[in-house]
Amino acid sequence: MRLRNKPWAKPLIDSNPELIVTKPVEYRGKWETRFEKKAPLFIEIGMGKGGFIMELASRHPENNYIGIEIQTTVAAIVLRKQIEAKLPNLQLVCANGSGLSEYFEENEVNGIYLNFSDPWPKTRQEKRRLTYKSFLKQYQNVLNAKGSLEFKTDNRGLFEYSLVSLNNYGMIFNQIFLDLHKDEEAMIDNVMTEYEDKFSKKGQPIYKISASFKN
Amino acid sequence: MRLRNKPWAKPLIDSNPELIVTKPVEYRGKWETRFEKKAPLFIEIGMGKGGFIMELASRHPENNYIGIEIQTTVAAIVLRKQIEAKLPNLQLVCANGSGLSEYFEENEVNGIYLNFSDPWPKTRQEKRRLTYKSFLKQYQNVLNAKGSLEFKTDNRGLFEYSLVSLNNYGMIFNQIFLDLHKDEEAMIDNVMTEYEDKFSKKGQPIYKISASFKN
Ligand SMILES: C[S@@+](CC[C@H](N)C(=O)[O-])C[C@H]1O[C@@H](n2cnc3c(N)ncnc32)[C@H](O)[C@@H]1O
Ligand SMILES: C[S@@+](CC[C@H](N)C(=O)[O-])C[C@H]1O[C@@H](n2cnc3c(N)ncnc32)[C@H](O)[C@@H]1O
Repeated sequence: MRLRNKPWAKPLIDSNPELIVTKPVEYRGKWETRFEKKAPLFIEIGMGKGGFIMELASRHPENNYIGIEIQTTVAAIVLRKQIEAKLPNLQLVCANGSGLSEYFEENEVNGIYLNFSDPWPKTRQEKRRLTYKSFLKQYQNVLNAKGSLEFKTDNRGLFEYSLVSLNNYGMIFNQIFLDLHKDEEAMIDNVMTEYEDKFSKKGQPIYKISASFKN
Repeated sequence: MRLRNKPWAKPLIDSNPELIVTKPVEYRGKWETRFEKKAPLFIEIGMGKGGFIMELASRHPENNYIGIEIQTTVAAIVLRKQIEAKLPNLQLVCANGSGLSEYFEENEVNGIYLNFSDPWPKTRQEKRRLTYKSFLKQYQNVLNAKGSLEFKTDNRGLFEYSLVSLNNYGMIFNQIFLDLHKDEEAMIDNVMTEYEDKFSKKGQPIYKISASFKN
């Protein structure tokens, strides 16, 4: 999803510094200070319109959440909703997920979510995929020992690639779903994303993996 | 596939000892002697009606093949075809695949094929699945350093389970297909099995993984 830059986006972000961060390096090791309560921290990279991270935050007041999005206008769309919702356990970040280990200290993160990440299908684009080994290295840097990576997508090619990439990196698979929406038990706790809603309605299978690092 | 025992099966096997083996332990480390030529050895566990292993053997005269099947009547059906075909690089074994490391020496095998293995879907049946860790241990024992395991199935639950099981055992994934028949390149070399023909015609996706042991 590429959105044309909206002129209101940047000013809205600049005038809500308590809800959204554009220089996440400044909070490395002290994200706690931006939340009401000290609590386990979970992040989503590429939150898009934010339906997933906002729903998760409202279902789980016992955790803190950060939604990261690289596109200014897209991040501002989530910000608009958060100005209404005022979820105390949600912070937004408008920045590139590739800088993750500059934004978070070792062990600062309890879980990472990737949902319907851009597929970058061409071989020469491999390095941009959020499950490429250089990204996995960053996830490993910031996740604590019990932390896991949860990845959902409808994109078959990206999921095939990711299974091999995570395995080859040495990650341990916890659980895999090759048609998530057909698994009644898994769906009880499932939080839908905007893309998931769209593609599952078209009848496409949704793939999901949960995996951890050895440490 | 369970077949009722046919009265002709056992006598046919007994009268063709040059084509089929019922006591594979006797050939441990000397399978070479049963083939015309010394060549890399590949095996299939649970060959069913044998379409796959016979086609593979006829396409690849440069390799030797062994098809293993536990059911006497099913093995005898393949034998009937091999009596006609007389493929010099194919041997049949009627025995339980769970004894693999008694049948083959370390490094004697170059590749193992599992096709549409029985799913054993209940949790208490896990140990019978051909991708359960005790089976993987046997594959590791007999495969040489370059050897790989290739597994195809239409069964989503079994494939999800197998991805986790192979990964947790420490196997390295080479390649994964979540809808094999949609991949034109992979289909060039694909050899169909009887089950594959049946399930792909119903429009079900065929899953495939190729994986190796670290050594
Ligand atoms: C295909 S959309 C999916 C949005 C949402 N997760 C969903 O499932 O509905 C992918 C989003 O990830 C964002 N994105 C891509 N690469 C990123 C990166 N390196 N850092 C942060 N966000 C990124 C894109 O701008 C886009 O909004
Ligand atoms: C579902 S059929 C698939 C047959 C064939 N591979 C195909 O794809 O058409 C599985 C076969 O594996 C055989 N089998 C199951 N467990 C086995 C074992 N432990 N050792 C040898 N054969 C086994 C069964 O008897 C059956 O013929």
